[in-house]
Amino acid sequence: MNKSTNIVWHQSSVKKADRENLNNHKSAVLWFTGLSGSGKSTLSSALESELFSIGTHTYRLDGDNVRHGLNKNLGFSPEDRTENIRRIGEVSKLMVDAGLITLTAFISPYREDRDRVRATLAQGEFIEIYVKCSLDICEVRDPKGLYKKVRLGEINNFTGIDAPYEEPLHPEIIVDTENQTLEESVQMIIQYLKEMQYIKGTS
Amino acid sequence: MNKSTNIVWHQSSVKKADRENLNNHKSAVLWFTGLSGSGKSTLSSALESELFSIGTHTYRLDGDNVRHGLNKNLGFSPEDRTENIRRIGEVSKLMVDAGLITLTAFISPYREDRDRVRATLAQGEFIEIYVKCSLDICEVRDPKGLYKKVRLGEINNFTGIDAPYEEPLHPEIIVDTENQTLEESVQMIIQYLKEMQYIKGTS
Repeated sequence: MNKSTNIVWHQSSVKKADRENLNNHKSAVLWFTGLSGSGKSTLSSALESELFSIGTHTYRLDGDNVRHGLNKNLGFSPEDRTENIRRIGEVSKLMVDAGLITLTAFISPYREDRDRVRATLAQGEFIEIYVKCSLDICEVRDPKGLYKKVRLGEINNFTGIDAPYEEPLHPEIIVDTENQTLEESVQMIIQYLKEMQYIKGTS
Repeated sequence: MNKSTNIVWHQSSVKKADRENLNNHKSAVLWFTGLSGSGKSTLSSALESELFSIGTHTYRLDGDNVRHGLNKNLGFSPEDRTENIRRIGEVSKLMVDAGLITLTAFISPYREDRDRVRATLAQGEFIEIYVKCSLDICEVRDPKGLYKKVRLGEINNFTGIDAPYEEPLHPEIIVDTENQTLEESVQMIIQYLKEMQYIKGTS
C-alpha cells in the first residue's frame, strides 16, 4: 500500500531560532560556579524568579534535581565528578537548544570541566558566572552544615579545604556575594542579559 | 558584614505549574516506541511541527541529539541500552518539569525500561505511543539502510531480527503507520492531547 511506503523522511523543522522567536528571548546557559556556601543556589534561584516574572522561559539544574535522577549512578571520585559535570553540560546544551535560559548551580571546581562544557556550546551560549566569596565567609555561612562536618573529619575531599577550587580565568560575570546584596547581584546579571540582548528591556 | 551572612537560603519558587501557566499548556513526555522504520522519527517530527505551529513549547529527543552528546559514552550492550533509556527518561523528566511537551523517538524495545521511565514520572506525565508497523513493511521502507546491512550480516543484535521488541501492553496511543497516513496519525495524537486537556483546542 502506498500509505505505508511513501512516508517522507525528514528532519525536525523546529529549530532553536524558532523557539527563541516563540519565547521572545534568546537561550543560553548561565553557569554558576563557586565554593560551597558562596551563594550559587540562592542567587540562581532568585534570578530565576526574577526572569520568570518578566516572562522568560527558564530552567534551573542543581544537585536536587540532578544528583537524585540523571546522575544518581555517579559518586564523588575524580572520574565521576568529571562525568557529573559532562552530563550536566550536555543536558544544558539540549535545554538551550529547546530555547530555555538554563541556570546551573554546581560548585564545578575544575576549569577543564567547565571549559569542556563551554566548548560544546556555540559562541554566546555559555555564560560563566563566578560567584566569588572568601572561604572564611563561606564557612561562617555554612548553609548545609558541610564545613562543620569537614572540620569534624566526617567529610573528605571537600572543595576549598582539601580539594582544589580553580577560579575562572575569564568568566563573563563576577558576582561578589561578600560585598554585594542579593538584589544587587540579581540586577547585575539581568543587566548583562539585557545589554547582550538575550532578553529585551528598556534599561 | 551583614551583607555576606544574612542571605536567605531558599528553594526555587518557580514550579512546573507556573511554567505551564506561562506556556498555556500542560507538559508531558510523548514516548514513541516501535521498530526501526516504523515511523517514529517522521511522526514525532511532523507532530512537533504541528504543535509548534499552535504555540506549544516542545522539544524532541532522538538519536541525533542524544547519542552524540549525553550518551556518547554508551555502546549497545544490554547494560548500555538500559542506561541509554534511563538517561533519556531522566532528561525527559527534567524537561517536563521545565514545562515542555517532550517527544522521544527511540526504539526502546524493552518493556521494563519503558515502564521504569513511566514510574519516575507523575500520573499523566508519561504518554506511551506505540508506533505499530509490521517488520515486513519496516524492512521495505528501510529508511536508514539498516535492514539491508543486517541481512548482509554487517549488523547484529538488531531489534525485530535477532533481538527482541516487546510491544507495549497498555500504551496510551497506538498509531498504525501501515494503515494510517502521516497526517491521520498526527491528528490522532493532537486529538488525544486536546481531549486530555494537555493543550487547548476547540475540537
